[in-house]
Amino acid sequence: MCEKHQHQSAAIADNHEGHDASRRKFIHATSAVGAGVMLSGLVPSLATAAPLAPKPGENIKSKGYAAFDDSGFLKPWEFERRPVGDDDILIDIKFASICHSDIHQMKGHWAPQQYPQVPGHEIVGVVAAVGKNVTKFKVGDRAGVGCMVDGCADCDTSTSRGEQYSPQTKFTYGHPDDRSPTGITQGGYATNIVVRDHFAVHIPEAISFEEAAPLLCAGVTTYSPLLKFNLKKGDKVGVAGIGGLGHLAVKLAVSKGAEVYAFTTSPGKVADIKAFGAKEVIVVDSPAALNAYRGQLDYMINTLPVAYDVAAYASVVKPFGTYTQVGMPNGFTVSVNALALSASQVNFNASLIGDMKETQDIVDYCVKHDIRPEIQVIPASDVNKAWESVIKKTARYRYVIDSSTI
Amino acid sequence: MCEKHQHQSAAIADNHEGHDASRRKFIHATSAVGAGVMLSGLVPSLATAAPLAPKPGENIKSKGYAAFDDSGFLKPWEFERRPVGDDDILIDIKFASICHSDIHQMKGHWAPQQYPQVPGHEIVGVVAAVGKNVTKFKVGDRAGVGCMVDGCADCDTSTSRGEQYSPQTKFTYGHPDDRSPTGITQGGYATNIVVRDHFAVHIPEAISFEEAAPLLCAGVTTYSPLLKFNLKKGDKVGVAGIGGLGHLAVKLAVSKGAEVYAFTTSPGKVADIKAFGAKEVIVVDSPAALNAYRGQLDYMINTLPVAYDVAAYASVVKPFGTYTQVGMPNGFTVSVNALALSASQVNFNASLIGDMKETQDIVDYCVKHDIRPEIQVIPASDVNKAWESVIKKTARYRYVIDSSTI
Repeated sequence: MCEKHQHQSAAIADNHEGHDASRRKFIHATSAVGAGVMLSGLVPSLATAAPLAPKPGENIKSKGYAAFDDSGFLKPWEFERRPVGDDDILIDIKFASICHSDIHQMKGHWAPQQYPQVPGHEIVGVVAAVGKNVTKFKVGDRAGVGCMVDGCADCDTSTSRGEQYSPQTKFTYGHPDDRSPTGITQGGYATNIVVRDHFAVHIPEAISFEEAAPLLCAGVTTYSPLLKFNLKKGDKVGVAGIGGLGHLAVKLAVSKGAEVYAFTTSPGKVADIKAFGAKEVIVVDSPAALNAYRGQLDYMINTLPVAYDVAAYASVVKPFGTYTQVGMPNGFTVSVNALALSASQVNFNASLIGDMKETQDIVDYCVKHDIRPEIQVIPASDVNKAWESVIKKTARYRYVIDSSTI
Repeated sequence: MCEKHQHQSAAIADNHEGHDASRRKFIHATSAVGAGVMLSGLVPSLATAAPLAPKPGENIKSKGYAAFDDSGFLKPWEFERRPVGDDDILIDIKFASICHSDIHQMKGHWAPQQYPQVPGHEIVGVVAAVGKNVTKFKVGDRAGVGCMVDGCADCDTSTSRGEQYSPQTKFTYGHPDDRSPTGITQGGYATNIVVRDHFAVHIPEAISFEEAAPLLCAGVTTYSPLLKFNLKKGDKVGVAGIGGLGHLAVKLAVSKGAEVYAFTTSPGKVADIKAFGAKEVIVVDSPAALNAYRGQLDYMINTLPVAYDVAAYASVVKPFGTYTQVGMPNGFTVSVNALALSASQVNFNASLIGDMKETQDIVDYCVKHDIRPEIQVIPASDVNKAWESVIKKTARYRYVIDSSTI
């Protein structure tokens, strides 16, 4: 399974000159903690054998890679997390993958940030401790965490619309948090994390940790709107932006029997995307590339995390169809030509990750249907290079940080 | 009927100092063409008694008020229209009302324009000549013209989606037109107009010309999306922007039994809007005014012809509900906060006028349900002051130009 889908410790595509040095660092880092940890994604029992239980009420020591300002440059940082509360679990992190949102938020593209701040909201690992009320997990369980770490589990909003819409929900990093010693939540580019049990999901043995990580944000963010659209076999589904989110959207839609039309600005991705099962790959080198598909598709999802011409992309959907934005550009702002949107008669909406049930569902769905993200495992010391690669659109398709190298 | 709804020759609200002079001009202008024309809206038979039939193939002489550059200042202009073709009718215009779109287009807010250009796409009058193929109208009929004047009547797009979406459709002014002596279509602030019969609608005797005029754009533009939403009794419907379009949207939604929530930035309109039947009028003086209605409404229509915060307004609709933009701001561009739109889970779409069937329907519907726009009839010489008033939001609620004063 892993060999089929995964490029272990692959070079970061746009920066080959630094690769050998990074590789040396990677080997050095991993050798320091022992070869057993190298296999932690595959053999969790080895890694979970001897976690030290934290003392009740005591802060949890952690190490991570943090941004210290809006330059977007990450450096190692030692910090403390809140104690494990009665409803919480402590997870020893095995892998955490890189989402474009990490970059946006650390660089202050969405709002001014408090620093130091550890990004990362695609997190997998092993439960190392549980609070006294926790029944969902036990020590040694494989667990995953996405974009949410705390909040109510059963308020009206959480149960009717999803936890991500509840004002009580705390997001995984940078969210004000009185219980955190740093005053904000700190994310998953780190050795461990404390989360309320409700906000973690089970990771079945049948999927590797490193392949499960990207499902926690990229996976559920694309799965949730596809699920709401009630995608049927034979539907013509568009996916625009074939990066971390988009390549999973292609695979998910294909698995539902859809005819997938993938829109990318990267000609170099065409062969990959066809291999993911897309019926057509359209290289959008001019608006004319979109015009040729005007009014053709039943549904479309757009994952572009940058500003773009919404109405031009939406126009490829049939009149009265739906077009969903899931990428979040600078300032969260997209601009829409209302005349062009009216001419397409398409409904435009946006979707924010997914709820906790959907987060578990996407993991289980990918296990059941043998869907895996395309990943490149990297040592933590390569994180800044990986971010550059994501920005330059040379990532193929999700970088996953091996937390044992932190 | 007229006394109830209409303010004949009312002062332009923001410019009282010029009113007396304008009134003198108005009286002078109307006296020149005879008192009978003053009543033309009510007694069409007087006006239709003696139109001179144009010679076949001969251009039609017309007078109007045109923009000569993007200053937005209109001046009298004599020009020629294309001959009356086999499928065309010639209409002697009685009244034409002022739409914010006229101002946007003449000022080049949407695209660079060819000048001179006569605006106006809310046009009513009497048929003065018909082409040999025309069966829909006969000379003397009361007729109305909206935003379209020519094109195919039966192409796939016209029949399945509406004439306004057909690439063959010519819009009423500024549209390239080989048959027009000026090279573009010329609008309704004029003495007459030539249109293909399919693009004119019948104006029943039961409604005055001047009250029918605003229905041809403002009416159908709000009626069409309300009709598509399939508005039911008791639905909570929001209307934002209570001007020419919005005040009709309020009246139409009220007539369908909806609970109407009207959002305006003009405190001075509150009493009027309540009189139109709105259940609540919300003065939007800060975003908090919208927050109080978050997730409350079944549907919302926004008529604002300026840039505004789409997601903030959309948030008052219930999750999975629909929010429709019909106003067209500068550059047609609205900006949308994708995060806020995702948080509302609302579908955003835009709607462009309505098709020809809907244009006839809105006229007949208003006659049947005794719905009339609030109008102020003005002489053509007041048109520039009226435009200023529209921009300053002091119009109450639609200016209608008496074409006999041109």
